[in-house]
Amino acid sequence: MQAEIITIGDEILIGQIVDTNSAFIGKELNKIGVSVYQITSIQDDKTHILKAFSEAESNVDIIIITGGLGPTKDDITKHTLAEYFNDTLVQNDAVLAHVEDLFAKYISTPISDLNRKQALVPSKCEVLQNDFGTAPGMWLEKEDKVFISLPGVPFEMKGLISNYVLPKLQKKYKRPFILHKTLLTNGLGESALALRLEDWENNLPVGLKLAYLPSLGKVRLRLSIKGFNKKEIEGLVEAEVKKVLPLIEDVFSGFEDNENSIEKIIASKLIEQNKTIAFAESCTGGKLTEIFTKNEGSSKYLKGSLVCYATQAKIDILGVSKDTINTHSVVSEEVAIEMAKQIREKFKSDIGVSTTGNAGPTKGDSKVEVGTVCIAIATKNEIKSYTFYMGNHREKVINKTVNKILELLQKEILIN
Amino acid sequence: MQAEIITIGDEILIGQIVDTNSAFIGKELNKIGVSVYQITSIQDDKTHILKAFSEAESNVDIIIITGGLGPTKDDITKHTLAEYFNDTLVQNDAVLAHVEDLFAKYISTPISDLNRKQALVPSKCEVLQNDFGTAPGMWLEKEDKVFISLPGVPFEMKGLISNYVLPKLQKKYKRPFILHKTLLTNGLGESALALRLEDWENNLPVGLKLAYLPSLGKVRLRLSIKGFNKKEIEGLVEAEVKKVLPLIEDVFSGFEDNENSIEKIIASKLIEQNKTIAFAESCTGGKLTEIFTKNEGSSKYLKGSLVCYATQAKIDILGVSKDTINTHSVVSEEVAIEMAKQIREKFKSDIGVSTTGNAGPTKGDSKVEVGTVCIAIATKNEIKSYTFYMGNHREKVINKTVNKILELLQKEILIN
Repeated sequence: MQAEIITIGDEILIGQIVDTNSAFIGKELNKIGVSVYQITSIQDDKTHILKAFSEAESNVDIIIITGGLGPTKDDITKHTLAEYFNDTLVQNDAVLAHVEDLFAKYISTPISDLNRKQALVPSKCEVLQNDFGTAPGMWLEKEDKVFISLPGVPFEMKGLISNYVLPKLQKKYKRPFILHKTLLTNGLGESALALRLEDWENNLPVGLKLAYLPSLGKVRLRLSIKGFNKKEIEGLVEAEVKKVLPLIEDVFSGFEDNENSIEKIIASKLIEQNKTIAFAESCTGGKLTEIFTKNEGSSKYLKGSLVCYATQAKIDILGVSKDTINTHSVVSEEVAIEMAKQIREKFKSDIGVSTTGNAGPTKGDSKVEVGTVCIAIATKNEIKSYTFYMGNHREKVINKTVNKILELLQKEILIN
Repeated sequence: MQAEIITIGDEILIGQIVDTNSAFIGKELNKIGVSVYQITSIQDDKTHILKAFSEAESNVDIIIITGGLGPTKDDITKHTLAEYFNDTLVQNDAVLAHVEDLFAKYISTPISDLNRKQALVPSKCEVLQNDFGTAPGMWLEKEDKVFISLPGVPFEMKGLISNYVLPKLQKKYKRPFILHKTLLTNGLGESALALRLEDWENNLPVGLKLAYLPSLGKVRLRLSIKGFNKKEIEGLVEAEVKKVLPLIEDVFSGFEDNENSIEKIIASKLIEQNKTIAFAESCTGGKLTEIFTKNEGSSKYLKGSLVCYATQAKIDILGVSKDTINTHSVVSEEVAIEMAKQIREKFKSDIGVSTTGNAGPTKGDSKVEVGTVCIAIATKNEIKSYTFYMGNHREKVINKTVNKILELLQKEILIN
């Protein structure tokens, strides 16, 4: 059972946007036992689109197309799809009613004929309702092949995949199970790791694939397998994990969980333990808070946060003592500790977390090296503080700091 | 002059990573007049890689391949490339010396035979030195077609593209100029905009392509053209921009200079006018602040912000009156106005911006419909407030609200 993802849009090929849709679709398809054979990104060009459709049809069973469904002239996917299926576009009344409803509810400009044309779909297609936008999803079958056309707007596409496409594919096809298990390692290079694992790797059972994914001091080891007997493939993977763990004991840091990002794990632990949290951010500039609030349900455990970017704001609003700042510099564990304490008290939360650091490129108010970051975590009974050097690249410093806080929080919450 | 980008790696197809390399390469190629015909992502599989090479060779002049050059067994690009060119791998002494040098300088684990194998390259290839890693770039020619193989690690790939690939392509091929000009508009839907521009669009000169790129309350209009006479195509685009500007005067917010996002434009205006700003965020959860702080220099104009997610925090920490909340509901312009006033006073900033809204999926403390967002902007002399309905999808509500605030801020700052 194989799929091809075709993403349509000049903006992808000229590098105006990064195609994030394909990764989402690939991951979701894998979960239901469909492998992605190829991802193909092409221009808004009829000849090219037709060629891609026909090549995909000869390679795979399921073709998922995103993009090119807008109401303007440069969007030609729908017409090209109709041509490929020797079909014509007809008005779908349910889609029209949905478009009119969206305009009545959320859009201030009056509805136009161009908007109403979103209700035109190939007569042979089954419409998949787009709950979050005007362009419908379309499901077309040709012998035993399925073509699924989806809008390119990520959250519209995601809604359609989760609510309509996956359930329909699960119903239509008998699929194997695909299992990926990823082990995280830190501190050993890819080739050194490979040498250490050579014997084990050479004796992996047929069908079990090993991949090394290196990235800045970390190497992820991914085991992948496919099969119809779920128990059996799970057993195979577990047996190999048991064999490899003793070999990487000193560098192993955990399993990568696809479903649950670390912030989601922390959030559910906080809710489970009925604890609340508040953040005092400086160099991370709101990113830490944003990572939690983007997921629903954050109001259950997140009291709020203060981004006190300026030194004066740390004094005036957060109540950090001027003396502490003058004595130890604004980037210091002493200041981080006061910030964590104060934010916890101000928001009446169980846990208070603070960062103060310098993301660069200039030193700002602090005297420390660019990339120095102090973190403190305050609970009722104790305060822990840390200092790290996160490198000399602004984006890297911000993201590494957020990751480090998540790592510390996970340890903190799992232990307490 | 067309190129295809082939990215190799199971991790892309299973959605474990997002392919950001292609967007970078696409943008860089465009700058030197090379169009990207297609981006193809495929598995670490010999048969599939050979098929992709052969298809690409029949479609384009330049084939750029990334990924699969690591020292471990799952990396097979180099061997497959040698097979495709009926070639064998031979040791390149310069690469070997470079690998040994990198290990001596930066890597604590001892060099191994696996690392030394990075110096094996197809005998027919020209080596492109990888200044930032051990896997070399490889340049192979077949009649008038060029195959370029690069490592998948983004910063290694970027170094090779900028320092070696682009200069060599510029030398080898006569290329046209590709010009993209993108106009940013806010507050008018894609179809309403298209209707307004219909006459202009229908009369665009041949070869000038118009694209609408809508995204949550913003629409980007991109004009693209290709030609050998740079002056001529620049003149054509400028003439059309002059014609279209009066038609979009009320919604036009600037040109997208790949380098200049709307938040950067606002930031530089604030610095120019010597003004400071502070944010009181609720439903946007830190995202608004993060968008500014991720760029360097934000401490020059951003005093800080408060994410007062919980209603009680709005009262306790921001000082919004309980009465106002009880009378008007926590999501109301009255509350937004108090928040904007208070945040401006607390942070002693020139401008105070607030949002209070409900991103969903549940109603939370407010009585209003999910997706209702109130925004207020307070300056020394006046406070403006607004109410919007941002739809029923959490991610959409958050991002649309941020975009709306940026739009309002730009107007506010440009006018005052």
